[in-house]
Amino acid sequence: MTNSDLAAVVAAVRERIDPDEAERRALADAAAALESRVYDALADLPVDADALQVGSTARGTWLSGDRDIDLFVRFPADLDREELEAYGLEVGHAVLPDGHEEYAEHPYVKGDYDGFDVDLVPCYDVPSASDIRSAVDRTPFHNAYLTERLDDDLAADVRVFKRFLKGIDAYGSDLRTEGFSGYLAELLVVGHGGFEPLLRAAADWSPQVEFDPEDHGTRSFSDPLVVIDPTDSERNVAAVCSAENVARLQHYARDLLSDPRESLFFRPDPRALDADGVRDHLDRRGTTAVAVVFDCPDLVDDQLYPQLRKSLTGVADGLDRRGFDVFRRATFADTDGEGQGEAVLFAELSVAERPAVERHEGPPVHVRQHAEGFYGAYEDGDDHYGPFLDGDRYVVEREREFTTATGFLESDALFDVALGKHVESTLREDGYDVLVGGDVAALAGAFGAELGRYFAPRP
Amino acid sequence: MTNSDLAAVVAAVRERIDPDEAERRALADAAAALESRVYDALADLPVDADALQVGSTARGTWLSGDRDIDLFVRFPADLDREELEAYGLEVGHAVLPDGHEEYAEHPYVKGDYDGFDVDLVPCYDVPSASDIRSAVDRTPFHNAYLTERLDDDLAADVRVFKRFLKGIDAYGSDLRTEGFSGYLAELLVVGHGGFEPLLRAAADWSPQVEFDPEDHGTRSFSDPLVVIDPTDSERNVAAVCSAENVARLQHYARDLLSDPRESLFFRPDPRALDADGVRDHLDRRGTTAVAVVFDCPDLVDDQLYPQLRKSLTGVADGLDRRGFDVFRRATFADTDGEGQGEAVLFAELSVAERPAVERHEGPPVHVRQHAEGFYGAYEDGDDHYGPFLDGDRYVVEREREFTTATGFLESDALFDVALGKHVESTLREDGYDVLVGGDVAALAGAFGAELGRYFAPRP
Repeated sequence: MTNSDLAAVVAAVRERIDPDEAERRALADAAAALESRVYDALADLPVDADALQVGSTARGTWLSGDRDIDLFVRFPADLDREELEAYGLEVGHAVLPDGHEEYAEHPYVKGDYDGFDVDLVPCYDVPSASDIRSAVDRTPFHNAYLTERLDDDLAADVRVFKRFLKGIDAYGSDLRTEGFSGYLAELLVVGHGGFEPLLRAAADWSPQVEFDPEDHGTRSFSDPLVVIDPTDSERNVAAVCSAENVARLQHYARDLLSDPRESLFFRPDPRALDADGVRDHLDRRGTTAVAVVFDCPDLVDDQLYPQLRKSLTGVADGLDRRGFDVFRRATFADTDGEGQGEAVLFAELSVAERPAVERHEGPPVHVRQHAEGFYGAYEDGDDHYGPFLDGDRYVVEREREFTTATGFLESDALFDVALGKHVESTLREDGYDVLVGGDVAALAGAFGAELGRYFAPRP
Repeated sequence: MTNSDLAAVVAAVRERIDPDEAERRALADAAAALESRVYDALADLPVDADALQVGSTARGTWLSGDRDIDLFVRFPADLDREELEAYGLEVGHAVLPDGHEEYAEHPYVKGDYDGFDVDLVPCYDVPSASDIRSAVDRTPFHNAYLTERLDDDLAADVRVFKRFLKGIDAYGSDLRTEGFSGYLAELLVVGHGGFEPLLRAAADWSPQVEFDPEDHGTRSFSDPLVVIDPTDSERNVAAVCSAENVARLQHYARDLLSDPRESLFFRPDPRALDADGVRDHLDRRGTTAVAVVFDCPDLVDDQLYPQLRKSLTGVADGLDRRGFDVFRRATFADTDGEGQGEAVLFAELSVAERPAVERHEGPPVHVRQHAEGFYGAYEDGDDHYGPFLDGDRYVVEREREFTTATGFLESDALFDVALGKHVESTLREDGYDVLVGGDVAALAGAFGAELGRYFAPRP
């Protein structure tokens, strides 16, 4: 490829994602109107505060069509927490009369204004990021740091990089994605001087990769990607970013550099599968699929997905430990529709059945006390073979507790594995279904898209 | 138990194994007559030599019914090897006119005399065991060492211990048994001052166990049991004894001490199985048996069994590596009958089938050159799933070469595993059969006893 190929692709992408003049103006007008409303509301309060627009729409790094406006209201640092919260909500409701309260570290008001999604967040006006009293107090410092360093070209490259991360499914620091946050994306583009230099660097990364723009880091981290927050020497901005998403960026950086194409930025999902499609794949693969299906616990995604993943690992380990070899696994949750959807712990097995006997190794014969205890326990009875010797150890072949994966999944032994807290309580209290083999094809109804991705895996 | 219980059992065993006066006299007469024949033959030779009876029948440590007489003819140490061999055979044929030649380190003559099996072995008369010119030269020193130390009581205890080792299937330093040689058994009884003290010590052994009666050992060994030869500081008399046979002695020593009984000394084999019996066990166990059956290579046991075991390990590892989990395994050889019998590599599988796909892990994405090579190799084509990412690595799910254990065993891939030399050439040149599932029951015809032991395993 030549630079101009990539440049042409980037130009084409920008055509689609750069906000046009009308969009910029509409956003600026809305932000200005909201700010003015904030000051009107503040005028009625016995406290000195200011309004500050933050986030990508404050810095020109948003993608066309994003309609989020983040307005922070900075109160004096000596204000009581209760007063801050009360004033914050008062301002919030005054500015967004139809808004509703949400809760992060403080409660705040979220609402619609002129078609924009507006967050009105109270925070403390602290002298530096090391004096913050809650996590949101850091945001104005992030905003100031980036605003100082972004020019129009870099802001455009941030937009292109964010679109690229979206295209490769690596955008977002939520715990479902475990990818790159917007702030991290902006720091990386600024730090490398643009999108293409960042791609070239990422293509050659050898994790652990460390960046410390202000050269002030004091801690060491075990994460694959470490970007020390320029406003907080103790914090890794990329702490959430998984090794897989770092590898994903590396892979697609190489891919885009060697074969620049617009489609990577707007990659469609693999085709959703219907029940027949699922059955076809299972037949072709010759695996035995099993699924534990239950009502999805009513949790925010940042709680739900870690719990589902922990549960999936627990169940898969439980299967593996009992000889039901897990070939691949996944977890799905139906959180989009109305009402309570289902959640699924899905495992494709290489081995779904085991013999009636299992090998049980005892101690070495020379460890006399243990050896005599083991031998004594199995000396009599005709429900096992042995004890006999294998090398210097006793071995018996005894009845296996579970000869089928389904038997294990349907038993109380399922609760011996590590499960997410709310997953466990849901399984215990509301029960669950176990699907096996071709029956899992029924999941295509609610999870056709997820199964489509599962059976067409890509980096 | 009380000592008198064990004493009573030992007394009862001795009733059955102690040679009576008539047997002793017959043996002494035969040995004397043979010795006299040796000197007659030596008189015709231009060399100075003597005859020496060695072995258990020379020391009163043989079991009633054993009919082996070992006569060594000691020639001067400065004799040429060719002359020694020629003179040795000349004496041998003169003493045993109907004898035939066998070959150990030298050729020697073996024959029948008055119902006894006689070995007439030439050796060098060296001043000490450290001057030996061949392994057989050591035997007279062993004989002298033990003869000096054995009295009637110890000789009786040696007989009891040897009978015990036979009862528990641990007697013999041949490479099929890998157990305790007669010389080792005698050293252990002499060293511990009798059968019962030896049992009590063995019950508490914690391998590696070392004895050095002459306190002259210079080398270190990795064997579980080390008994430095009193006549050779560099040699472990127990080198052949496997960890399993050391554990076996420990197990049955404890067993006999806690429950003294004559039956342990004369333990019958488990009942042989017929085809139905084999099928019943396989049905009960739910395993899938496979067997590679071929003409038994025409080798002495000391070559055959190591080759069969090596081949069995190779085949079992080959099965395991391909996901066909081996539950237990064994090798059988029909070397008793007339003509060439069959040999079998037998494996009972927990998993005899695998899916059509296998997981194939690639390099970490950050190892750029390898990663690009791997991705490039699997980027196109629809005969696999992926590449996708698992953590920081590429993974593909590709077609599995063998989806059944039988498929592997019947393929040329069988020759990729480590096989014994003559086993490999037999399989290659004469072919082999693969039996699977209930079909292995047909092996009960030639190997009913072996299968009986296999399905009634004991320490």
